[in-house]
Order: sequence, then structure tokens, then C-alpha cells
Amino acid sequence: MHGASPRTPGTATRGETVPTVPPAESAADVVDVTALLERGRTLAAPVLRAAVERLAAPMDTVAAYHFGWIDAEGNPSDGDGGKAVRPALALLSAQAAGAAPEVGVPGAVAVELVHNFSLLHDDLMDGDEQRRHRDTVWKVHGPAQAILVGDALFALANEILLELGTVEAGRATRRLTAATRALIDGQAQDISYEHRERVTVEECLEMEGNKTGALLACACSIGAVLGGADDRTADTLGKYGYHLGLAFQAVDDLLGIWGDPEATGKQTWSDLRQRKKSLPVVAALAAGGPASERLGQLLAADAKSTDFDSFSEEEFAARAALIEEAGGRQWTAEEARRQHAIAVEALAAVDMPDQVRAQLVALADFVVVRKR
Amino acid sequence: MHGASPRTPGTATRGETVPTVPPAESAADVVDVTALLERGRTLAAPVLRAAVERLAAPMDTVAAYHFGWIDAEGNPSDGDGGKAVRPALALLSAQAAGAAPEVGVPGAVAVELVHNFSLLHDDLMDGDEQRRHRDTVWKVHGPAQAILVGDALFALANEILLELGTVEAGRATRRLTAATRALIDGQAQDISYEHRERVTVEECLEMEGNKTGALLACACSIGAVLGGADDRTADTLGKYGYHLGLAFQAVDDLLGIWGDPEATGKQTWSDLRQRKKSLPVVAALAAGGPASERLGQLLAADAKSTDFDSFSEEEFAARAALIEEAGGRQWTAEEARRQHAIAVEALAAVDMPDQVRAQLVALADFVVVRKR
Repeated sequence: MHGASPRTPGTATRGETVPTVPPAESAADVVDVTALLERGRTLAAPVLRAAVERLAAPMDTVAAYHFGWIDAEGNPSDGDGGKAVRPALALLSAQAAGAAPEVGVPGAVAVELVHNFSLLHDDLMDGDEQRRHRDTVWKVHGPAQAILVGDALFALANEILLELGTVEAGRATRRLTAATRALIDGQAQDISYEHRERVTVEECLEMEGNKTGALLACACSIGAVLGGADDRTADTLGKYGYHLGLAFQAVDDLLGIWGDPEATGKQTWSDLRQRKKSLPVVAALAAGGPASERLGQLLAADAKSTDFDSFSEEEFAARAALIEEAGGRQWTAEEARRQHAIAVEALAAVDMPDQVRAQLVALADFVVVRKR
Repeated sequence: MHGASPRTPGTATRGETVPTVPPAESAADVVDVTALLERGRTLAAPVLRAAVERLAAPMDTVAAYHFGWIDAEGNPSDGDGGKAVRPALALLSAQAAGAAPEVGVPGAVAVELVHNFSLLHDDLMDGDEQRRHRDTVWKVHGPAQAILVGDALFALANEILLELGTVEAGRATRRLTAATRALIDGQAQDISYEHRERVTVEECLEMEGNKTGALLACACSIGAVLGGADDRTADTLGKYGYHLGLAFQAVDDLLGIWGDPEATGKQTWSDLRQRKKSLPVVAALAAGGPASERLGQLLAADAKSTDFDSFSEEEFAARAALIEEAGGRQWTAEEARRQHAIAVEALAAVDMPDQVRAQLVALADFVVVRKR
């Protein structure tokens, strides 16, 4: 699928800017991305909160904790609600179909609910104890609540859309359901890959397409569907979103190894500590050559190691250096740019207002230069 | 809500027929209920199997194990797929709206998928190791697969309906989503009640209405909705299903204590072993009098007991006898009849073919006389 094995190893070190830069003439120069994200957050937040308030106790409290609205003791908190890229995209999606941004709001909220349903369940399945600088729900409220509230958020997502009672809402829900099934497939792949010694670059991309691409594709098309767009238009906007998701994930995979803990809220070398077979790792292993082979030997030994948890900073840094030397870092940065380019190109096939097009391009640029 | 505290204690012992009898002129005399259940099973099974086959590996295998189509080693098995009351009801629901039974099939399958989604997640949350005479999915395939496959079945349920692409399918999915939310609410209540010393009869009925009534209400209305029935008709059929569900659950609660292990596939005194605050228990505790008080003292001590797991048959039998002496068994049997009567009465408000009406009444009768 992507056969490139990079020649020049990257040079940046942990904490520096991820070496993925937007094209020279960036739409970000003329569009205020911060304002776009803020608009998505502002329009979606009250509807999301009202949806969560429908949950019976104690699920409403558990969900409010997950979203960062309250702390573990139940006191109000203005936690980090995330970047809110999806809501911003869902509103632009409505505008791409000529509708008002508000038309996309139920879609934005439904997508956020599904995203958070998957976080609740994945954190439990993966045994992850931290998310967004806080203990995860299963850690604070127990596994049963993580399962139950995840289920409830998934059901709420469908409820929010279907109570619109329109044909478009039915189509939107069908797309959301397809995306959710892909999310679940991706998590199943992620779990099965953990037990395998080798994962190909293609398998990794397929898994990331399911786990990240499908829901971003839905975010980018759901507003248009609610605004009455035909399936071809929705599919094309979905293509933009899918590849944007892959670019997003490639950047995430870079941040998962070389990201600044201050910005990401994760530990240093986070993905290496979790033995994640992310893109830089699988690309480095596929590249061949001395560094690639040495990395393969080290990771194979790590998989059997009993004192992996007590590895020092230096041991993880050595693995990261080998990944970089084998070209995994640069390949992934290039992959982010390739996926970004495919995403932006897809927009050409949809007739939409110039300003909306510029905003979608600016969001794509933002995704590949972000630092968290 | 139901203030009756029975006066005459029941006399039947474990293994005997549950003392809930159909009315003197039973519709079951003229309707072949076995054939009705078989028709539901026969029409729904291939569609259900085809739906499950859409799942990616290993989720398809895990789901096939859960449904009893294969054993833990992956060999074909014709396990006990359950009574299939819900599919039979969904097909009759379509006929009640003047449509062919086949029109109800996607609804029957969607309801079965949601029912099994909830079983997969509830068994994990409750730590239940056995279902239908076999180890539960989390026990055989691990907690992550139980979560993941449950999620996938829930998503599939929506998919099956929404891909019909009709306005009716949207309405049907909305009803299914509402029922699913009620299921989740019921499970949340069930979990919270476990940690409480006392649960009122009203709270128990509300929880059972959510856990059992709501999805049976959906089964009884979804076929009609797919067949084009208006909301009033669907709501009335739903009322029949809701109260049928409460009757069903009251019988289940009786079987959970006094059922024959050979027939139910559960241990003797199953619900008592699990400290379940089921209807006979809460009714007995609410009844007052010496047996009720003695029972209350025993159960309060049991809640704190550290050797509860090693209790003998006799100790559980003593608790069951106190529940019966306090009137909990008889009250629950009467409650099953009350709910049965409300269900059958609801049918009078819907105009439908006489034969369909007789079949719905016969299924209601079947539910209150079943032995497993």
C-alpha cells in the first residue's frame, strides 16, 4: 500500500516540533482555526451536556467525570475536554452542503458521544489508567460503570439523531452506525495485534483507519447528510475525513513516542512503554537494514522480558533512537503529509462555498502541525 | 403501586409447577404455541446468523459461541438458543398491523441482538459464570471480547434496521434505542440495589420493567411499526409487551428460587445464592409479621457473612421457606397473574385479526405457565 522506506533518518529529538509541516501556502494563514474549534465547542457543549443529563444516576455523574466536568469527588471542574476537532468538522460539514452550521450540531454531539463510548470501553479493555491527565473511569468508578456508561453514551448518540424524526436523521444514524462498527473492528484488531510479534504497515494503517479514520469520516459527512446532501457528496466529504483521520493518527503516533509530556499529558516514550506497534515502529521494522534488525531483536526480547516495567529512560530512548535511525520517524511524518494531501484533494470534488473549503483545509493543516 | 401483602402462604416446593395458572378459558387451548415459537425461530435464525457473520474475526466466533452455535473449541453445536419468545412476538406484531409476519423479521433480529448485547455485558458486570448451561463469554474468551462483541451486537441491531432505509425503519430504531436505554437504566438499578440493605417492591418492579418489560414492549411493537402502524397502535402493543415482560419476570423470579435445576439450567436456590433482591424476597420483606422479620434478620447477617459461599442446601432451603411463609412466593405468583391480565386487556384497544389476537393471548398464557 505504502511501499516507501525512507532514506534520510530524522534528526529532531523528543519535545521538538513534530517534523510534519503544512504546505507552503497554508490556509491556516487566513483562517482562524482556534475560533473554528471554539465555535464547535460552544455550539455542541450545551447539547452534549443536556444529553448526558438524561442519564439516570449514577451514570450521569460517571459520564460528567469522564467528560471532565466534575472531579472524582463530584466537585465542578473545567477539565481538558480535548481539541474538539470533530465538532468543528461536523458543523463545517453542514455548511459544505449549504446548510447553517447549527444543522450539524446533533451530528457533532452524536459523534462525540460515540467517540467517548469507545474511549470508556477501550480504556477498560486496554487497562489504561490515565486519560487527559486524569484517572480513567474504570479506575475511579469501577469496570461495571465504565461498561454501563459507555453503553449508555452509544445509545444516547442514536437517540439524539433519531429524535429529529427526519429521513436525513435516519441516514445520518446509519452512517454513524457504520463508523461505530469500524471503531469496534479497529479495537478488535488492536487487541489481536498486541499478541503478535510482527504487524505489517498495511495492517497498522487498516487498524488506524478503523479506529480513527472512520469516525472522522463520519464527523465530516454527518452535518452534510443532516443538511440534505446526497450520498455522493457525503461520501466525498467522508473521504476527506478518513484520510484526515489517518494523518491525525500518524501525528499521534509520532507524539506517542517523541511528544513533549507537558503538552501531551502522557509519559515520556508513552507508546513504547505500552509496547504499542504504532506506525513509526512497524515502519522501522519493515525498513530493513542494521538499525531495523537491531530494533527487531530488542523488541522481541522486550516482549518476553519480565522487568520491562522497570526499564530506565535511557532504555526507551535507545529504542526511540533505533526507530528513528531505521527511518520510522521520517516515514510516519511523510505518511502524515501524504494522507493530508489525499484529504485536501478530495475536497476538490465537492461544490461548496469558498470560505468553507478554506476552513476545511485549515483544519487539515492544523491536524498535522499540532503538538498534542 | 401494588400494596397487596398476601395472607395465605403458598405450599408448593422446589421443582413443582410454579403456582401461576392461565385463566380458565385459555387461548392456549386453541393456539399451537410451540408452532408459533418455532416459526419465530425459523424465520429469524438465518437473518440473525447472516448478521453475526458480518462481524470481523474473532468477534464472529465469540458471538457464535455466545449464541450456542459452536462450542468453546469452535466445533458446531446446537445449543439451547432460548425460548425465542421475542422473535415470535415481533412477527405477530407485524401481523397485528395487517402486514405479513416476514415484515417483522428485521425487528425480531434487532431485538435479539440487543437482548444478547445486554446478556454479554451484564454477565461480565455481574460476574456470572454460567448461562444456558454453558460458561459465559467473558469466562471463555475473556472480558475484552465480552465488551467488544456486546458493543458489536448493539451496533449490528441498529444496522439491520437502518439499512432498510425507510421512514418506518427510523421509527423502529428509535423505539429500539429507547428500549436499550431502559435496559441500561435497569442494569444500573440492579447494580446499585446490590449494595443496599432494603429495596422496595416498587423499586424492584421499576427495575424489572426496565430490564425485561421495555425490550418485550419493543418486540411487541417493532413489527407493527415496520408494517406501517401509527404510534398509538404501537404504544398499545408496547403496553401489552411491557406487562407481559413483568409477568415473565415474576415467573422468572419464582423459578430463580423454586425452579427445577434440570429445567432452568441453574443451581438450586440460584437467586438466593446470588443474594438477588428479586420480587419474592422484597415482597416477603415488605409483608411484615414474624417470618418476614426473621428473614430480614437472616439476610442482613448474610450480607455481612464471610462464609456465605459455603452455605449448605439446608441453609438456602430455610431462607426459601421463610420467603414462602412470609407470603413472598404467593404474592409474586399473584403479581404474574395481575401483569398477565393487564397485558391481555391492552390488546382490546387494538383492532387486529382475531387469529392474531388469539395468538398473542396464547403467548401471554404460555409465559406465565412455563417451567424454565
